[in-house]
Amino acid sequence: MDLYDAMSTLRAVRRLRPDPIDEEVMERVLTAATWAPTGGNTQPWRIVAVTDPAKKQALQDLYSPHWDAYIPGYEARLEHMPEDAKTSSIKAMEAGNYLASHMHEVPIIAVFCFNPKLMAITDAELNRPSVVGGGSVYPAVQNLLLACRNEGLGCVLTTLLCYEEESVKALLNLPEDWYTCAHVPIGYPVLGGHGSIRRRDMKQMVRFNEW
Amino acid sequence: MDLYDAMSTLRAVRRLRPDPIDEEVMERVLTAATWAPTGGNTQPWRIVAVTDPAKKQALQDLYSPHWDAYIPGYEARLEHMPEDAKTSSIKAMEAGNYLASHMHEVPIIAVFCFNPKLMAITDAELNRPSVVGGGSVYPAVQNLLLACRNEGLGCVLTTLLCYEEESVKALLNLPEDWYTCAHVPIGYPVLGGHGSIRRRDMKQMVRFNEW
Repeated sequence: MDLYDAMSTLRAVRRLRPDPIDEEVMERVLTAATWAPTGGNTQPWRIVAVTDPAKKQALQDLYSPHWDAYIPGYEARLEHMPEDAKTSSIKAMEAGNYLASHMHEVPIIAVFCFNPKLMAITDAELNRPSVVGGGSVYPAVQNLLLACRNEGLGCVLTTLLCYEEESVKALLNLPEDWYTCAHVPIGYPVLGGHGSIRRRDMKQMVRFNEW
Repeated sequence: MDLYDAMSTLRAVRRLRPDPIDEEVMERVLTAATWAPTGGNTQPWRIVAVTDPAKKQALQDLYSPHWDAYIPGYEARLEHMPEDAKTSSIKAMEAGNYLASHMHEVPIIAVFCFNPKLMAITDAELNRPSVVGGGSVYPAVQNLLLACRNEGLGCVLTTLLCYEEESVKALLNLPEDWYTCAHVPIGYPVLGGHGSIRRRDMKQMVRFNEW
């Protein structure tokens, strides 16, 4: 696919079919992740690709209660939304409900792991939440999502399972120094899959020379 | 460009020419950033695109001492590297030196800002560095880098200026709740620009079902 076509039609696709994904397709998607830049080229991330049914079920069991807890706040925010945003957010919520009860049957869940000891986290000492470590993992996640788009695979970046990191680490046998930062269910879409997206206009997102 | 071609040839390009960039080209690059996914689609980031010569010089003046401080550790790591990695790392260091003294003349420095109050940071309470906030900004940074690649523009993701966040906020007049997470100098390449990259093989980066 053309780069801009892929980017501008990459949606969060949460209704995924259980159908298997060819090995060569998954290899292309996973290889695309490795191409991403990382600080000092240390590539301080790994993927544990979960395909085992029992482990997928375990991830769903850990995920669902957090999704359920997320819903009331989500519904509260709907109240204040303009009509078009509201419609699309309700659809997203329903798709999220679907994912929360079907995660066990998606063919693959890519769990991104990272090791902070391999990162230079330049905002670690600032008096606000640190994000810079994410600069060496989420570009790889975005490459993976775009590659899924390219291959006709649905996918969505989730982070709710970080609330259950200890359990996920035990489930996947992660070393002590490695943690989790993204959980991407991947599969062929149940419905239309990728397509038009709703984003703010560029002119709302960019200023020149000062705020 | 084809998606995989763009991704697999996206390099950190640190030698950038002062030549101007057409407005329509920059609009495409900045628009590509807006297409990225963010948690809850809140798009909790903005870009301040710095083109003003005095402000670019000020950013360089803040950046250079941190680059200089970074060099000794970088050189120490070279000692333990295999020969091919060493050669490429020395080149990167020299290019970094170039950037540190020419940042003031690049046509544009994209300063990515974010507001943590608009983010659900699911790893905020864990006993390790938080990265999840980065999940709502660095996919946009990666889109911007890939779009630069597509347009023949050199670029590199830097985060050293986070050490000087207070000064950068004052320089760009950022609101209190907004912080900085990436500084991307953009310009046409002095030398070959993008091309082959050195990354670990996919099989080293991915495991199945357990570590």
